[in-house]
Amino acid sequence: MRNFRLELCYDGSRWAGWQKQKNTDNTIQQRLETLLSRLLNQPVELAASGRTDAGVHARRQVCSFRAETELNADVMLTELRKYLPEDIGALALEEAPPRFHARLSCVEKCYVYRIHTGDAPCVFERKYVYAFPAALDLKAMKRAARALCGTHDFAAFCTAHGKKKSTVRTLKSIDFVREGDELRIFFTGDGFLYNMVRILTGTLLEVGTGRRPAEEMGEILASGERARAGFTAPARGLTLWDARY
Amino acid sequence: MRNFRLELCYDGSRWAGWQKQKNTDNTIQQRLETLLSRLLNQPVELAASGRTDAGVHARRQVCSFRAETELNADVMLTELRKYLPEDIGALALEEAPPRFHARLSCVEKCYVYRIHTGDAPCVFERKYVYAFPAALDLKAMKRAARALCGTHDFAAFCTAHGKKKSTVRTLKSIDFVREGDELRIFFTGDGFLYNMVRILTGTLLEVGTGRRPAEEMGEILASGERARAGFTAPARGLTLWDARY
Repeated sequence: MRNFRLELCYDGSRWAGWQKQKNTDNTIQQRLETLLSRLLNQPVELAASGRTDAGVHARRQVCSFRAETELNADVMLTELRKYLPEDIGALALEEAPPRFHARLSCVEKCYVYRIHTGDAPCVFERKYVYAFPAALDLKAMKRAARALCGTHDFAAFCTAHGKKKSTVRTLKSIDFVREGDELRIFFTGDGFLYNMVRILTGTLLEVGTGRRPAEEMGEILASGERARAGFTAPARGLTLWDARY
Repeated sequence: MRNFRLELCYDGSRWAGWQKQKNTDNTIQQRLETLLSRLLNQPVELAASGRTDAGVHARRQVCSFRAETELNADVMLTELRKYLPEDIGALALEEAPPRFHARLSCVEKCYVYRIHTGDAPCVFERKYVYAFPAALDLKAMKRAARALCGTHDFAAFCTAHGKKKSTVRTLKSIDFVREGDELRIFFTGDGFLYNMVRILTGTLLEVGTGRRPAEEMGEILASGERARAGFTAPARGLTLWDARY
């Protein structure tokens, strides 16, 4: 069995997210596994650096899969590109060391959340940016962000999935980049819980508009209660920026 | 009657073009006239710097209209934005001098045609860029472009509309900008015929791939025959960049 590393980008707008599901075929993982299985004449299972929710995009998602094949990676990439839908792009495909695993080997992921705060958001970017016309107090948002970074139990910042897994994660940094009327918030960490970046963003936006004080972050984390944190910002503004190994 | 100047941007993907038509309501002009007529309680007719074909985008389209109203332009703009579909943006709205007319006063228009020449076009830009994976001879394309600039009868570079209007136009410049795997061709002129920029682009691409010599441009212009020029590049790659007054 050979091991492969596949890098993808996708516009998540019309997809039910990355992960395979019982009640829909409309997931990116399902579509790619079907394609690769046909291409290689064997069942192929894909691992990804992490799941992306329904409607969330990826600028660079890293995947891995094992297969018994004589095809070289370049040929496989060319073939794959012929059959991909136009909202999924294959950036690279190469053979990987036997122990490489897209999820288990990943040391850091980075997401970006894009917010347009003006009156006239760009129509060409509308599917990738959340239109939130408001004057934001960036200083307060940065104070709140500092309190959120570090190793914490982020139970208050995730949508419960019913499973009793650990909700402790290390959020390494939250960086703000302003460009005209657009604010980009970059979240870097060792892993993220279900909806975590979107709830962090919603909470930061509530701090930015003055609806809640930046000083509240510690209490919210300590409470472990989802209801204490802010709203879940829409999926369309979120993009998996990069996965690092 | 007051006179207004309205600046728009739009993603043309799902529209049957700018201009009102008998057999469809799905035009940008129709949608905007309906909206403005309701807003101002009177029939409103819009003039634009020029028509854009079905599927063609606008980064900045300039329009004008006359109306009898007490509303100030800022209020009108805020109201208009509430009702615009998400693929049409209103960039600005202001009162204009009485003689200003978006088409008649326009002295120059600029279009950009975007071409991705690599193997992996960006999924996020797919609706605005034509994927044409090929090695292009940019020098030959520039030679051909030089021969096309100037005041000529561009009959060979337009799709006949059955009308016997003049097909003489002044093409002021064709500029090439390369950025990674993307080539942008900017066309500036006093006016453009139906499909003209797309046929110019298709012809330049045929020069770029070596299918026809750059030296042929003079003959094609002189022939006045559409069949002598190159293919019509797809609408999705074309954007009205700017209209100047």
